[in-house]
Amino acid sequence: MTVTAPDRSIILFGAPGSRAKIDTPALVLDLDAFEHNVALMAETCRRAGIGLRPHAKTHKCSTIAKRQIAAGALGIGCATIDEAEVMVAAGLPGVLITSPLVTAGKIARLARLVEAGGDVMVVADHPANVAALDQAIGATGRTLRVLVDLDLGHHRTGVGTVADGVRLAREIASWKALRFAGVQAYAGHLQHIADHAERLARTRAADALVADLVAELKAEDLAPAIVTGAGTGTHRINAAGSPFTELQAGSYIVMDAEYGGIEYAPGESWPFRPALSVAVAVTSANVPGSVTTDGGTKAFALNGPRPRVASGPLAGAAYEFSGDEHGRVSLPEGTATPALGTVLECTVPHCDPTIAHFDAIHCVRGDRLVDVWPVDARGRRAPLPPG
Amino acid sequence: MTVTAPDRSIILFGAPGSRAKIDTPALVLDLDAFEHNVALMAETCRRAGIGLRPHAKTHKCSTIAKRQIAAGALGIGCATIDEAEVMVAAGLPGVLITSPLVTAGKIARLARLVEAGGDVMVVADHPANVAALDQAIGATGRTLRVLVDLDLGHHRTGVGTVADGVRLAREIASWKALRFAGVQAYAGHLQHIADHAERLARTRAADALVADLVAELKAEDLAPAIVTGAGTGTHRINAAGSPFTELQAGSYIVMDAEYGGIEYAPGESWPFRPALSVAVAVTSANVPGSVTTDGGTKAFALNGPRPRVASGPLAGAAYEFSGDEHGRVSLPEGTATPALGTVLECTVPHCDPTIAHFDAIHCVRGDRLVDVWPVDARGRRAPLPPG
Repeated sequence: MTVTAPDRSIILFGAPGSRAKIDTPALVLDLDAFEHNVALMAETCRRAGIGLRPHAKTHKCSTIAKRQIAAGALGIGCATIDEAEVMVAAGLPGVLITSPLVTAGKIARLARLVEAGGDVMVVADHPANVAALDQAIGATGRTLRVLVDLDLGHHRTGVGTVADGVRLAREIASWKALRFAGVQAYAGHLQHIADHAERLARTRAADALVADLVAELKAEDLAPAIVTGAGTGTHRINAAGSPFTELQAGSYIVMDAEYGGIEYAPGESWPFRPALSVAVAVTSANVPGSVTTDGGTKAFALNGPRPRVASGPLAGAAYEFSGDEHGRVSLPEGTATPALGTVLECTVPHCDPTIAHFDAIHCVRGDRLVDVWPVDARGRRAPLPPG
Repeated sequence: MTVTAPDRSIILFGAPGSRAKIDTPALVLDLDAFEHNVALMAETCRRAGIGLRPHAKTHKCSTIAKRQIAAGALGIGCATIDEAEVMVAAGLPGVLITSPLVTAGKIARLARLVEAGGDVMVVADHPANVAALDQAIGATGRTLRVLVDLDLGHHRTGVGTVADGVRLAREIASWKALRFAGVQAYAGHLQHIADHAERLARTRAADALVADLVAELKAEDLAPAIVTGAGTGTHRINAAGSPFTELQAGSYIVMDAEYGGIEYAPGESWPFRPALSVAVAVTSANVPGSVTTDGGTKAFALNGPRPRVASGPLAGAAYEFSGDEHGRVSLPEGTATPALGTVLECTVPHCDPTIAHFDAIHCVRGDRLVDVWPVDARGRRAPLPPG
């Protein structure tokens, strides 16, 4: 299943004022801010002499992935086999699946991607998984690059010690259909530490563990070609001297309200700009002091700061969820009740799961809707296998 | 965009043990429990002499809507124009859109549905909206049935007083292309009151307001043909004598963990069975005492009780979210660590937004996967309009 018809909003493309006519609820991407963010992260990595493999779990959108590659990224991170299938089908290079694929069904799908010539890699954290990968890939006559996933204290995936990491790398290298390609070490638990000094100290401690594993691997003649990790929250620290050869940041393309409460660096504010909002419309205005809108818990992620109205006469007003399909906005004192149908653009709580609620991203410049990009890696969109 | 290929799991249909091989994360529907629930609500309404127009916002699935109609439902509730477009296209009768449609784009889409002969109605709570509806429908040469939406204290949508309700009904009846069809009064804020006595008292108080409006309308020669409302939480109270001609319950088809904490009736437990779960797979098992799975905040709704493992050796173990793509399950003492790839079925926090995360519903009987139904009203799936 692929998104063929982008959206009926296409009829408004380029018309003055069309931004305010986008069918709600909708994701709205400010292209100027987005392009600034894409270019800035690419330039930051270039200057630091480090690679960038941005994570597609944020956007699930092959159009955005292509923009990132065009700006210099060396590949794309994917959280799921579904995302990887879409990115490979769209011709994206250097697709790294950043979570272990362990079920028979997912390993079979990975093997089909490899067999079709997809430029894809995967991480692993367990010898049983490595053996299963070799068996499936071996049957295709091709080879698969596999990275050792190292746990930096998040306790989500990864081997827990340097010794286990070396053992697993040796294991990978021992199989006929697999190639040991490097190390992944992603510190998800460090990305949102608000205090910069603490984030710096803990990131450096995590870096030391990664450096240990890299050194041990080199000593074993298993020098990792790729050392990948880091997110938007620690990218600057990791870019400024770390064992990493590349960064996996994702959120920087659009930012979200979560990063508003995090100290970028001493005396510096975030150079990435909030580029994404959720547009909702006023659908009821019978209760004095508030209006109801058409965006509820099916339009916003709940794991992040509460949305706020981003601009216009109600700017700053907080969003109160009023069920799965509705939201409520209290009117700031002295504000006139907006007319039914008024579109309010709201801040995004946590970007990844908010984007995953939508089929399309509405791209705007100024007051104009100029494009619609399908969130084509959302859900399960790969075709049925033969048979 | 329509779901044409259901799912690659189709290759397992009917095979013994295929339930445990469903590709994760996945929605799993126990057909025996689901069919019990559909039949029981239909029978409850029949016995009470009240109609049933179940709400499709719960399932967003035309296959389920057809099952409900086959069991005797007189129509289908829809929260959005997107849902209504899918249900009408699938041939469902009596589609009632239960939130006001106020933007120009949505009213135009509603007019297209009416023009195409769709059996569709909508609620309204404001004269300006009624005027806009008449203008759009008038241009089609058809008529549209419109219900007055009455606010029962939720303060989400609806007119706030009986007098406003009568005025709006008169307004609807005065337009050429509109027909006054009745009253909607949905008490979303009463559905989850845990204590039965309190839920009963507050529902009866709300009923009194509805009865007042109905009486006033009759006195004005505007007798409402339809009086619609109620949800799963208050259905029994509303069915046992109320001003309603029909119920709008939705959650009863699958139930969810939210209803676990709510007293059904004095001395009685819920007769509807939990029919839905989210299947996840163990993807990492390197941390003693816990395992990581492939279901995070993109697979479960967050506005409900935390998921638990529903069956098997880890039954009852609580789910801890570990990001958008991962969950963690602590192993009960004495439990062996499950093998990588082990599928765990988990309870559903809040059914509506959980279902809305998925493209497909995997239907099982016993240990077998027997069907896959597309969640075809998820997202925006209607074709582009001409031009």
